[in-house]
Amino acid sequence: MKPFMNEDFLLSNEVSQKLFHQYAENCPIIDYHNHLSPKDIFNRRKYENLTQLWLEGDHYKWRCMRVCGISEEYVTGNAPEWDKFYAFAKIMPRLIGTPVYHWAHLELQRYFGIDTPLTEKTAEEIWNKTCEMLKTEGFDAVSLLDRMAVKVLCTTDDPADSLEWHTKLAAEDMPFCTLPSFRPDRFLHIDQAPWMTAIEQLGDKYGEITDWNSLLEALRKSLDFFCKTGCRVTDHGFIHFRYAQGDAAPVMDKALKGEKLTEEEISVYQGALLRFLAEEYAKRDLTMQLHLGPIRNNSPKLFASFGADAGGDSIGEATNPFQLSAFLSDIDKAGYLPKTILYNLNPADSAMLSTMAVNFAADGAKVQYGAAWWLLDHIRGISDQIDQLMETGLLSGSVGMLTDSRAFTSFARHEYFRRILCEKLGKLVVEGQYPCDIETLGEIVENICWKNAVKYFDFDVK
Amino acid sequence: MKPFMNEDFLLSNEVSQKLFHQYAENCPIIDYHNHLSPKDIFNRRKYENLTQLWLEGDHYKWRCMRVCGISEEYVTGNAPEWDKFYAFAKIMPRLIGTPVYHWAHLELQRYFGIDTPLTEKTAEEIWNKTCEMLKTEGFDAVSLLDRMAVKVLCTTDDPADSLEWHTKLAAEDMPFCTLPSFRPDRFLHIDQAPWMTAIEQLGDKYGEITDWNSLLEALRKSLDFFCKTGCRVTDHGFIHFRYAQGDAAPVMDKALKGEKLTEEEISVYQGALLRFLAEEYAKRDLTMQLHLGPIRNNSPKLFASFGADAGGDSIGEATNPFQLSAFLSDIDKAGYLPKTILYNLNPADSAMLSTMAVNFAADGAKVQYGAAWWLLDHIRGISDQIDQLMETGLLSGSVGMLTDSRAFTSFARHEYFRRILCEKLGKLVVEGQYPCDIETLGEIVENICWKNAVKYFDFDVK
Amino acid sequence: MKPFMNEDFLLSNEVSQKLFHQYAENCPIIDYHNHLSPKDIFNRRKYENLTQLWLEGDHYKWRCMRVCGISEEYVTGNAPEWDKFYAFAKIMPRLIGTPVYHWAHLELQRYFGIDTPLTEKTAEEIWNKTCEMLKTEGFDAVSLLDRMAVKVLCTTDDPADSLEWHTKLAAEDMPFCTLPSFRPDRFLHIDQAPWMTAIEQLGDKYGEITDWNSLLEALRKSLDFFCKTGCRVTDHGFIHFRYAQGDAAPVMDKALKGEKLTEEEISVYQGALLRFLAEEYAKRDLTMQLHLGPIRNNSPKLFASFGADAGGDSIGEATNPFQLSAFLSDIDKAGYLPKTILYNLNPADSAMLSTMAVNFAADGAKVQYGAAWWLLDHIRGISDQIDQLMETGLLSGSVGMLTDSRAFTSFARHEYFRRILCEKLGKLVVEGQYPCDIETLGEIVENICWKNAVKYFDFDVK
Repeated sequence: MKPFMNEDFLLSNEVSQKLFHQYAENCPIIDYHNHLSPKDIFNRRKYENLTQLWLEGDHYKWRCMRVCGISEEYVTGNAPEWDKFYAFAKIMPRLIGTPVYHWAHLELQRYFGIDTPLTEKTAEEIWNKTCEMLKTEGFDAVSLLDRMAVKVLCTTDDPADSLEWHTKLAAEDMPFCTLPSFRPDRFLHIDQAPWMTAIEQLGDKYGEITDWNSLLEALRKSLDFFCKTGCRVTDHGFIHFRYAQGDAAPVMDKALKGEKLTEEEISVYQGALLRFLAEEYAKRDLTMQLHLGPIRNNSPKLFASFGADAGGDSIGEATNPFQLSAFLSDIDKAGYLPKTILYNLNPADSAMLSTMAVNFAADGAKVQYGAAWWLLDHIRGISDQIDQLMETGLLSGSVGMLTDSRAFTSFARHEYFRRILCEKLGKLVVEGQYPCDIETLGEIVENICWKNAVKYFDFDVK
Repeated sequence: MKPFMNEDFLLSNEVSQKLFHQYAENCPIIDYHNHLSPKDIFNRRKYENLTQLWLEGDHYKWRCMRVCGISEEYVTGNAPEWDKFYAFAKIMPRLIGTPVYHWAHLELQRYFGIDTPLTEKTAEEIWNKTCEMLKTEGFDAVSLLDRMAVKVLCTTDDPADSLEWHTKLAAEDMPFCTLPSFRPDRFLHIDQAPWMTAIEQLGDKYGEITDWNSLLEALRKSLDFFCKTGCRVTDHGFIHFRYAQGDAAPVMDKALKGEKLTEEEISVYQGALLRFLAEEYAKRDLTMQLHLGPIRNNSPKLFASFGADAGGDSIGEATNPFQLSAFLSDIDKAGYLPKTILYNLNPADSAMLSTMAVNFAADGAKVQYGAAWWLLDHIRGISDQIDQLMETGLLSGSVGMLTDSRAFTSFARHEYFRRILCEKLGKLVVEGQYPCDIETLGEIVENICWKNAVKYFDFDVK
Repeated sequence: MKPFMNEDFLLSNEVSQKLFHQYAENCPIIDYHNHLSPKDIFNRRKYENLTQLWLEGDHYKWRCMRVCGISEEYVTGNAPEWDKFYAFAKIMPRLIGTPVYHWAHLELQRYFGIDTPLTEKTAEEIWNKTCEMLKTEGFDAVSLLDRMAVKVLCTTDDPADSLEWHTKLAAEDMPFCTLPSFRPDRFLHIDQAPWMTAIEQLGDKYGEITDWNSLLEALRKSLDFFCKTGCRVTDHGFIHFRYAQGDAAPVMDKALKGEKLTEEEISVYQGALLRFLAEEYAKRDLTMQLHLGPIRNNSPKLFASFGADAGGDSIGEATNPFQLSAFLSDIDKAGYLPKTILYNLNPADSAMLSTMAVNFAADGAKVQYGAAWWLLDHIRGISDQIDQLMETGLLSGSVGMLTDSRAFTSFARHEYFRRILCEKLGKLVVEGQYPCDIETLGEIVENICWKNAVKYFDFDVK
């Protein structure tokens, strides 16, 4: 029996252990997609306790607490911070098998040196110890990231954003780069409420938007500003990925008048905007990320109380491969297919996306099948992404993991991924599926952990 | 090499074995969904042989026999009972890896103490021995259930049913409760033949149904009668889960006149009826089960010969998450989301349903992702449901297994589930993923095996 | 640690090893679906080097090379043969975990006795050694097949094909039969460019096609000719499987005039043609294969340069179970359901197809769930097909593996499948899920490896 989450956690054999400890463990972290606050980084935000660090904005933990029957007061409500932490500690043993259970303990181990399982009984001791430690140096936002050897961070930002904090951060001496990512979701989803506000905000910043052409012009200016501020990556989320050829200008006019659009019109608008964006990305050597398949704000109660990202999101529909293929084909034919990463939330899409990516291989894995995302970010989900890449893509060319996180201690998720990766590669060796060539394997591990990402996104690493 | 299906069947390590033998093995059974005949229970039906017990109504075994090339005469036809059994015994070795193979041997072991694998050679001996035993006490319907420590049974019943046998059973001294479940499928599927008959039958019982309002009134009366007879659970099966907002009254008028309905009209009717039912269930604290995704009566030959449930059903389409979400959202917003269990037949729905359930967590796992159902009720299917719950739901809050069975010896399927559950939990421990805290683990096991169900459904357990 | 790909590759226990070495390893090969050139067989084509053998037409390897960043010149272009091979050898270590990695090494071992892993360093030695061996006897197309104990080959042929080489082969003394398969894809896909050409070519051969009836007449004649030339199997590929009832004659008239068809018209035409074909197949005792779910020619660049089958194909949409069921039901009801094999490319279809097949069991597994196909032909894909058959079908009745290959050395893929099969069966035994009855297990293995196929297709084996 293996001890609980010891140094060989998830590593069942000597080759896997060697690959992890000699190669993966100490690789820098290139976190090319997350939702961290650049303001908190600039301010070197400090945390008084684990409740602030863990429960303030983490909808993974909220979901766990709610499903265990913890009342909302202790989840997102006004209960005292200790009470919230204690409520969470109390349910921990019941979270058996969840990724939250593993993540929380990895974080206690790596950031606080605490090996004790968190339970009702150990809650107070762990609370006190972590509160003490959080007062010391090395626990502000920057130190927490630096401790994990983070070298690049790409946050997620709206085209109308001022990038105030990114600009300030660029002038600071920091152990890592904090770069903005261009995420024009509000502009793509012409059928949703925030579109009109987004149009106005972007217009205020980059010149009034009165039609399709002035929208494109404003987006172009915003993109230039993002690039000037270090942007290398863009991102797009789709509940339905819709794509059609057609003239977007009249659709936009209709929407500006507040008229209701047909499904076909939405597809035409989204198709045209995506083609425009892809071309602008390709010209600027930016990477285009597509996040496909959630279904959002299912719970009207949560949405009414907290708005979006409240923990009422889940896995939606499988993606239509024909529309996705049509989009990629059209921009490839036109000569402006940018580097592209495809992420799925519905596991039924894994094989489709992994094989779709390879259709557009050029100069290597230009179109990538992305890391296990969000509700798939668990052992089986990560394993499946790695398997898909081995079976139908190119694991050794993968740009690896990202946190997609809103919390400063989530970077232990890179370790989670790396352990699963090393376990898989080591097992291939001990099962006789691959020669025991540690040097080559170590190189593959390092490439996936960070070197491929640096090269693919063309990051300057400090 | 492990002996064939010994006491540690499916249990590969000491922790798993301990959890099963010390905790799971002797837990009572709460079988909250099955298709047993309350009449057979009341009559303490006896069986002369394994053919009566195994082959009379079991479409799982029929499918196996047909695909092995056994002619219909020996499956559902007029061949002598011994010949049917012998035909089944003969194919047993060819059923390698099927759940039927495991179930049959578990039943031979538990009910008859027979450890010998069933084959052509052992058929006669096993036939004779079981025939002898079936003559003795302890092999009538009630004893078979009692032997497995069954405490609650929920059968499946039409709203127009008289519940004659449930009423009689309630007056008897029985080691378990036999409760009716309300299954208004004939009323939901307005586009299918049995709808008109159902309307007439319900009208005869609860007042003539001439329109939408009189339908609701009759269903309300039926529900009250079901509740008076002990009903705690309802059930609904969908080939297409369709949901829309709209006025059902004119659709119902059209259907009563025998006019053909559009897809949209069917969705409006089903949506309205589901909202009505959900409200009535919530008021009465009943649980709403949704069984999603079969495709039925594919074989016109089987359907012509035997009607429904003849073994010509299989796995259908993935469920539309948007329509399911819209339904759950609407009733949650209106304040009458009942306790709900979501079951899928298409494995591509597992992750979607498991994550959908958690969106509506309240007072714990109010909406549950249900046990592996029907054609998924095998080792990998059960494993997948447990994994989904661990990864994206809450395994420890699960109401666990049910048989969905038509046979009195199928209760060994609870053992099948429990072994797989204990194997998984034990493996987490031996792999260092969870502390070796047997007491907590044992509590989790007991909760999933029966205690969560008792609490969730609010059953009175004898 | 197991040595790299030794004789017990993929076989983890003694039972699995025994089943493979005593039963599976030496079974003949019945390859009932591939894309080999009968002309190359007749001409006993010889190969000068591994580039000719491996890289000439193998889109699996092309995809690997492209995704590794190898320029097209070395993939399908004009680079010297050695340079192409060297480029491939160089990327081999990076293909860790891919089926191509395993296949290539199995082929080096079985055909050339080379156990050394192929890398940049070993490339020259392996090139030289294989070039020498390819000059000797035993390396022409016929010998390569004979060496693998191939007994039956079914190629893939258009109804308008002259079958010149099959006819010639039939007159030769060969160690195996090379039979044509009837694949009327060009005729089914009325909405695609090659349809009109196909109509003309078939008309030239079997009488002018001016309408629906003359099309059927010509196809009937072609089928008769195929049967005379030994055809036992037919094949059909669908990106969308569409099926409707209706009159195809007016649709055909419209298409002949070059008018654009609606989706509904295409479905009516395909439905009618499929019903016609099924009847003709049933009358002639031919097996109907349906290959469901790719998405083709995604890359406009590859299609522009090379046409179809250039490596720009991938996994498409899940199949509509209602349309598939309607088709099978209609022909079953009409009494002319032929033997049928259902293959999926989207893994989300596995459970649906495996269970659909059993609905139409008659005289055993008449409708089969087919082997892991194309982009699923890897360890996990093959495992999944075997698991599906065990869980919901009948593994022991399966007709087993085929290569679907365009290369003469691909027959090591039967070995790949057989190892995975034996591993699974052996594991059932060592885990106590099946009695240790080696004789029965060996019989099951031999049946799946070749005997079931001989019986099912009714092949004459030399």
